[in-house]
Amino acid sequence: MAPILLNCLGNERKEYLEETFHVNNPNLDGMEEDILYHFSLGTKTHNLPEMFGDIKFVCVGGSAKRMKAFAQFIHTELNLPGSNDEPKDICEATDRYCMYKVGPVLSMSHGMGVPSISIMLHELIKLLHHAHCRDVVLFRLGTSGGVGLAPGTVVVSEKALDYNFLPQFEQVVLGKVIMRSTELDAGVSRELLQCSKELPNLPAVIGNTMCTNDFYEGQGRLDGALCSFSHAEKLEYLQRAYEAGVRNIEMESTVFAAMCRVCGLKAAVVCVTLLNRFDGDQITSPEDVLVEYQQRPQVLVAHYIKKRLALIALTPP
Amino acid sequence: MAPILLNCLGNERKEYLEETFHVNNPNLDGMEEDILYHFSLGTKTHNLPEMFGDIKFVCVGGSAKRMKAFAQFIHTELNLPGSNDEPKDICEATDRYCMYKVGPVLSMSHGMGVPSISIMLHELIKLLHHAHCRDVVLFRLGTSGGVGLAPGTVVVSEKALDYNFLPQFEQVVLGKVIMRSTELDAGVSRELLQCSKELPNLPAVIGNTMCTNDFYEGQGRLDGALCSFSHAEKLEYLQRAYEAGVRNIEMESTVFAAMCRVCGLKAAVVCVTLLNRFDGDQITSPEDVLVEYQQRPQVLVAHYIKKRLALIALTPP
Repeated sequence: MAPILLNCLGNERKEYLEETFHVNNPNLDGMEEDILYHFSLGTKTHNLPEMFGDIKFVCVGGSAKRMKAFAQFIHTELNLPGSNDEPKDICEATDRYCMYKVGPVLSMSHGMGVPSISIMLHELIKLLHHAHCRDVVLFRLGTSGGVGLAPGTVVVSEKALDYNFLPQFEQVVLGKVIMRSTELDAGVSRELLQCSKELPNLPAVIGNTMCTNDFYEGQGRLDGALCSFSHAEKLEYLQRAYEAGVRNIEMESTVFAAMCRVCGLKAAVVCVTLLNRFDGDQITSPEDVLVEYQQRPQVLVAHYIKKRLALIALTPP
Repeated sequence: MAPILLNCLGNERKEYLEETFHVNNPNLDGMEEDILYHFSLGTKTHNLPEMFGDIKFVCVGGSAKRMKAFAQFIHTELNLPGSNDEPKDICEATDRYCMYKVGPVLSMSHGMGVPSISIMLHELIKLLHHAHCRDVVLFRLGTSGGVGLAPGTVVVSEKALDYNFLPQFEQVVLGKVIMRSTELDAGVSRELLQCSKELPNLPAVIGNTMCTNDFYEGQGRLDGALCSFSHAEKLEYLQRAYEAGVRNIEMESTVFAAMCRVCGLKAAVVCVTLLNRFDGDQITSPEDVLVEYQQRPQVLVAHYIKKRLALIALTPP
C-alpha cells in the first residue's frame, strides 16, 4: 500500500508516515510461539506477515453481522476485484469474533462491553506486531444512546469518558488499579467531521462519549430488571453528562481509546445514536430505520478511507 | 413441569418450591410494551408465557457454538421427542446472543465479560418475569484458567471474588458505585459436587472464582500486547489468590452471582479449567482435549437437571 499512501493528505503526510504502532511487552519477541487464542490464529500455524502485512485500516464493531456487511460494503467502495458475496471469516474456527480482510482494510467484530473488546485489542495489536504492520489507523464503528441529539446523528468522539465524566480508563494490573488516558486522535476526528460534510444525509458532531459497564443501571435506564432510581434522578444524571460534553453513551470506547493510545495507534470512535436518552430508554424505531442509522458510521469511515487512499479528490481545507 | 418437579429431591422440595424469582423494578409492570432489544423479543410481538412459561433451568455460557451443542446434548439426555440436529435459535434475528429452548431447559450464550453477560441477565430476568416462570435455577457453564489445579478440573464456585479477592460486585448506578454480594447458592453447589462423584472422568472441586475485566493484565498474563510486570510478580499475585481460596479465574461470575442473588434466583457457576496458570499463560492443549474439557460442565449440569427432574434415581445422602 505504500505507493498509494504517498498520495495521502498533503500536510499530514510526514506525521502520518512516521507514526508506527508498537506492543508494549518485552516478553513477546522471546516467545517461541504466540497463540492468539480467541482468533484461532498463531505465529507457528499462520504466516501473519503474508496474511496481514499490508493492513492500513482496522474497523471494529460489536456485531458480527454488521462487520461482515461492512467488509462487503468497503469491498465495493474500494472497487476491489472479485466477488464480495461471501467474504471469508478468517476467525471461523472460533465464534468469539469474526474477521474479514478487504485489501488494506480489516473488519472485525468485538462483542459487547469493555472486557470483550479488550481481549480482541490485545490479540489484534499482537497480530499487527507479528505481521510487521505500520501506520495503521483504528476505527470503532458502533451504535449508542444519544444525549440531547436527534436519533441518527453520528458522534465522532473527542474523548471517551468514564461514569464520572473523566477521560480515563481504570485498568487493573495484578490487583492494582492504574489509570490510562482516553484521549483520541484529534486530527482523525476533525478529518472525519469534514468527511461528514461531504456526504448527504450524514448529520455528525464531535463530542464526548461516555462508556459504561452496563446498559441498564449504569446508563440510567428505567427499564432493566433492576431499577432503584426515579425518572427525575435519571434526567438529572443525563443533564450532568450533557454539561460535561457527553453526546452519546456506549460500552467500549474507554478501553479502545486507552489501549490504542498506549500503543501509539491512531484511533477514532464513530457511533450513531439510536435514540435520544432524554426522551426514553427503549429502542423503538422501525427495523429499516435502525438499519439505515447503523450504516452511517460505515459510510463515513469508508469515505475517510477512500480519501486516505486518494481514491477521492481532496476537498480544499 | 410441576408434576415432574414434585418428584424432586425429597427434603429440599418445600424450600425449592417456595423459591420464586422476581425483578426488582416497579416501572416494568406499568410499561405498555417491553422490548428485549438484545434478544429481538418483546411483550407485544411475542407470547412470552406460552413460549417460556415452563422453563425451570437456564444454562448460560460465553460461546454460541457451545451453547448450541449443549442444547443438542440436553435434548438427548432428557430423552425428548423430535430431532436435535438443528435446534432453532430463538434470537436468530440478532447476533448478540443465541437462545435454544429444550423442554424445561433454556440454553443461551452471553459473550465474554461482565458487561456482555449483564445485558443478557437483565433481559433474561425480565423475560422470566414476563413469562411468569417460577422456581428457576440458573447455571453458568464456562471455561477458565485454573489456579493450582490440573487442567480439566471443574470448579463449582463457592463465591465469586473481585480482583481484591472480595465477594462483591461493584455496580455503577447513575454514577455512584454500590456493592452487591456475590455469594452463590450453597445447596446447589453441594449437590453439583455430589453429582460429580457419580460421574466418570469428572474431577471437580468447590472453590472461589476470581472474576476479572480483562484476560491479560488483569489476570497476570505475561503474553498480552501490554505487560509491565515480571514473572515473579505474576506468581506472587496468583499465590495470593490461591491463599484466598481462588481456584479459577474467569470473566463473568461476579455480576452473574450478584444479579441472581438480588433477584432471588438460585444460581451456580460451573467452569472447567483449561490450564494451570502457575505453569503458563497460553492455552496450548490440543483441540480434542479442549473440546472434551469443555463438555465436562455440560455433563455435570445435565446430570443435576436429570436428578432434579427425577429421571435418575437419587443416591443416598
